[in-house]
Amino acid sequence: MRILSFVFNQSERLGAELDGRIVDLNLACQAMLNQRGEPAADRLADALLPADAVGFLRGGKRVLQQARDVIAFVAERPVEERSEYSLEAQQVQRLAPVPNPGKIVCVGRNYHDHVSEMKREVPTIPVIFAKLPNTICAPGEDVPFPRVSDQFDYEAELAVVIGRQGRYIEEDEALDYVAGYTALNDITVRDWQHRTPQWLQGKSFDKTCPMGPVLVTKDEIPDPQQLDIRLWLNDELRQNDNTSRLIFSIPYLISFVSQIMTLEPGDIIATGTPGGVGVAMEPKGFMKVGDRVKVEIEKIGELINGIVEG
Amino acid sequence: MRILSFVFNQSERLGAELDGRIVDLNLACQAMLNQRGEPAADRLADALLPADAVGFLRGGKRVLQQARDVIAFVAERPVEERSEYSLEAQQVQRLAPVPNPGKIVCVGRNYHDHVSEMKREVPTIPVIFAKLPNTICAPGEDVPFPRVSDQFDYEAELAVVIGRQGRYIEEDEALDYVAGYTALNDITVRDWQHRTPQWLQGKSFDKTCPMGPVLVTKDEIPDPQQLDIRLWLNDELRQNDNTSRLIFSIPYLISFVSQIMTLEPGDIIATGTPGGVGVAMEPKGFMKVGDRVKVEIEKIGELINGIVEG
Repeated sequence: MRILSFVFNQSERLGAELDGRIVDLNLACQAMLNQRGEPAADRLADALLPADAVGFLRGGKRVLQQARDVIAFVAERPVEERSEYSLEAQQVQRLAPVPNPGKIVCVGRNYHDHVSEMKREVPTIPVIFAKLPNTICAPGEDVPFPRVSDQFDYEAELAVVIGRQGRYIEEDEALDYVAGYTALNDITVRDWQHRTPQWLQGKSFDKTCPMGPVLVTKDEIPDPQQLDIRLWLNDELRQNDNTSRLIFSIPYLISFVSQIMTLEPGDIIATGTPGGVGVAMEPKGFMKVGDRVKVEIEKIGELINGIVEG
Repeated sequence: MRILSFVFNQSERLGAELDGRIVDLNLACQAMLNQRGEPAADRLADALLPADAVGFLRGGKRVLQQARDVIAFVAERPVEERSEYSLEAQQVQRLAPVPNPGKIVCVGRNYHDHVSEMKREVPTIPVIFAKLPNTICAPGEDVPFPRVSDQFDYEAELAVVIGRQGRYIEEDEALDYVAGYTALNDITVRDWQHRTPQWLQGKSFDKTCPMGPVLVTKDEIPDPQQLDIRLWLNDELRQNDNTSRLIFSIPYLISFVSQIMTLEPGDIIATGTPGGVGVAMEPKGFMKVGDRVKVEIEKIGELINGIVEG
């Protein structure tokens, strides 16, 4: 399934892509229950298929199966009926697939080409840092250029979305804790990142963590480490690699992070960026107002954001 | 006012200390409205005086004044009536004063004695880092000793609680954005903090950010930089300083952080720790299972936590 969050009537809704339209999963569940003659179908649907991403993920496999059943129901309905619980993809105001993750844990220095372009040593222990909730940004949403710096850089990353609470997770069971994958752009203010020993101040400007366009459930990506990952700034291909070249694997990272903290449904682990960032270019290739930045990951899709005056 | 969050009937409630008891502010507001003959006093009270800390802080000065009016009402009621909306302090299961802050931004290297004991340079730009939501810990709650390290250290800190949304805040207006102050223990796993360039992995173990015992509103602390701050490990005084010795002042820090990110009601800025941390002692003075760690800040009170097997 290709799941997304969107806004409808000022509230957060969960949808799935189907035949070029976005099915509102909770409303479609309600329609399915109504058709079966269930009383109080609206309340039952809220329980069986929550309308928000974190609620949905907390429900685990049961809710995921419910969503699959609902999509199978919708796929068999006549197209004219579907407008009751689905929208044209272009009509939808998208949010980040998880609009309010509890944590965004990012991994630095996790592709060899990026480590060498930044003139660093290959790490023996994962380097992790955080992005804060103010950084969340939707697919298609504008990213404000900072007022205090002109070193505004991009970082294409594959992000893991956690689907199950866990602590001290074994590496060989780590993928059981994954709900799915999405694309992420770890936008970075380089001078602020490096002017003190801690990167946070360059990593937490408002709206500098676009995510999306969808959360692809893990059944559709059996091997998350065989995905092409690319970033374009306007029409220029800047990053071009494959997740097979991660230094620390996804299961290793999940296990590692869970030695420190309890992972929760909706938490994000951003797995690091390949070579080709703007700061490593000569002359520097930073983003500027008016630019359009696109992260593309195989099987996930395109995450596009414009850069606007801050 | 001395405000705290607590659990009642499995939900988060907001209280204030009065005469050794904890007044449930939302319930007491309801009682006040009932007495005035207001219809639908319960729903009106939910709007006028939200029962959760972030909702309360979002209401700003209007809700703060409402809370003052409610306390004045309670103070005039006969003691036997107060049990309808208040509890013995010992009966209350406390939470962190803000149980779910959007962000916890910590400042490193902000007292001269701590900078020199850690053998660092005095910073010219604040060094900031994050603690994640899994670190939130209540006053009196046990802190689990990590399984993966024995370098479990304390850091007493004065924490600022933000009361109003703000970006690009001027230093001379910064205190307008403060709701109040609390004590915080930035518990740190030292070897994990320093084994990679980024501190996050030593700063984000579960329950390593005790806060409390109360949020003291800023009217009761006209000068937050004249407060004695101390930390005891069991009966041994380990840290003993005064917030007058902060390198970067509280208004400067608020203004600085707001250049990067939008501050929101409930956000926490931890202002750094004085000298005397365990890692700087010879031999090292780390915490161990069975210890009791106490942060005491003048006008705020004592934040006490036990260390237990993780």
